Amino acid sequence: MILHIAAFRWKDDVTEADVTALTEALLTMAAGIPELRSYVAAPNLHLRPAGFDYGVAAVVDDQAGLDAYLDSPEHLAAYENFIGRMLAERAAVQLPIAEGSLR
Amino acid sequence: MILHIAAFRWKDDVTEADVTALTEALLTMAAGIPELRSYVAAPNLHLRPAGFDYGVAAVVDDQAGLDAYLDSPEHLAAYENFIGRMLAERAAVQLPIAEGSLR
Repeated sequence: MILHIAAFRWKDDVTEADVTALTEALLTMAAGIPELRSYVAAPNLHLRPAGFDYGVAAVVDDQAGLDAYLDSPEHLAAYENFIGRMLAERAAVQLPIAEGSLR
Repeated sequence: MILHIAAFRWKDDVTEADVTALTEALLTMAAGIPELRSYVAAPNLHLRPAGFDYGVAAVVDDQAGLDAYLDSPEHLAAYENFIGRMLAERAAVQLPIAEGSLR
């Protein structure tokens, strides 16, 4: 299994409404992608200093599932309609995880 | 519950041995911190372009659990012994998650 995580830092002009609309679009997208075992998308709670603004965590079975998610029309639309113009910086990694290791 | 995720970009002189030693230290640390419900620490699989080098994902119940983990002597030692000298950039966020939402 693969845990894909991404953190975003927004441009200064990004509004709360932008972030709310993005979150809605991402959660709607995730509901329609069967390859996504789990999906989290939310603004940073800022419980610790010096964080980015937003984060996504997605669990998939394998590379095919990851590509199905990230190359999906819905994900590309989320980039075109939101993330592309909001994004100042993106930090992403894919980590190997064992079944049941996240609970 | 809280999902803490962090992505690291390493300095150019970081070796594979450094990364292996760091991973061992982090997994040993995590085993000794009961507040950590789940913990993943690994190099990026680089299944997609333009990623950071390393990632951590930690699930805790609440802010107290998050602070117990991040302020623990073992975590501070991991910074002193490894991450501090290896780190070029760090991107971290804390996301709210529902019980059972990651599987």
